[in-house]
Amino acid sequence: MKEYLQPSTILAPIPAVMVSCGNMEQANITTIAWTGVLNSEPPLVYVSIRPARYSYHIIKETKEFVINLPDEALVWHTDFCGTKSGKEIDKFREAKLTKEPCKQIKTPGIKECPINLECKLKEIKPLGSHDMFIGEIVNVNAKSDLIENGKINIAKANLITYLGNQYYVANKKIAERGICLK
Amino acid sequence: MKEYLQPSTILAPIPAVMVSCGNMEQANITTIAWTGVLNSEPPLVYVSIRPARYSYHIIKETKEFVINLPDEALVWHTDFCGTKSGKEIDKFREAKLTKEPCKQIKTPGIKECPINLECKLKEIKPLGSHDMFIGEIVNVNAKSDLIENGKINIAKANLITYLGNQYYVANKKIAERGICLK
Repeated sequence: MKEYLQPSTILAPIPAVMVSCGNMEQANITTIAWTGVLNSEPPLVYVSIRPARYSYHIIKETKEFVINLPDEALVWHTDFCGTKSGKEIDKFREAKLTKEPCKQIKTPGIKECPINLECKLKEIKPLGSHDMFIGEIVNVNAKSDLIENGKINIAKANLITYLGNQYYVANKKIAERGICLK
Repeated sequence: MKEYLQPSTILAPIPAVMVSCGNMEQANITTIAWTGVLNSEPPLVYVSIRPARYSYHIIKETKEFVINLPDEALVWHTDFCGTKSGKEIDKFREAKLTKEPCKQIKTPGIKECPINLECKLKEIKPLGSHDMFIGEIVNVNAKSDLIENGKINIAKANLITYLGNQYYVANKKIAERGICLK
């Protein structure tokens, strides 16, 4: 029934996000699937980045980053920003993405993404191949048409998820939370 | 176009996993969405748990846990194990789930889940409302029918993802990784 396999990081589905860093003049974008929520009070998230990545040193210096959640229409851009290096090209320009000023930090978000999480770096935790950047969410921006009664209806956003080297949209609703109480 | 909202942990879609802890005689299961991959070498993952949770103290003591990835057929069980407390009930028995011995640790996995990640606790990092449990994956178990050429075809597993208080399956493939190179 079951087989044993070598230890590997086979956790899925996971988010595919575009992380922006830098400032309005000079910025970069990197695509990351190794991200998640750590804590609610304060609201903490993380992104894990290899030290060889161009964004690594920018975030280390500016102590800020934006987690931009891409939707289905941005799958090419998401792939592009995870494939090319910011050492060689200006990804905002090449991918035709627009820098959008943030409210609480100097790093620009990506205008085309429906949701942007502005983060202030709290800690860098080296783990081996990657360093974990722990960030506190200091502001959330969302497209107006996703907001219902002051809250984001995130299921409407067609966000991208990463599953076995492929990009998916989670579009099959199977149950509400609390189904076991009914 | 965009509106500012209060800081909140609105990162999605994220995995919905069942974390088992304890031993073959006495075990518990808790459902967690705050989990993710941290590092590849060594393979590190985390789960964030509130200290008030029953599983918190079990994992702290045994220094082991299993991340069990549930599929669509287990959505009721996933919801149940995230709603009830192990202080009051034996969740394996009540949810009719089966303890499956692990290879590298004493904690049982959940047999019905198609994939199980056996984890040894490396560190507990208190963050405020939650503590982050960092675990090293020491073995992976997967159902035979998911394995193709020695690798898991994870897209075949119909794993559950959590999106805005609802359970989804990511079943709409939108692109392969590397689409920008074509």
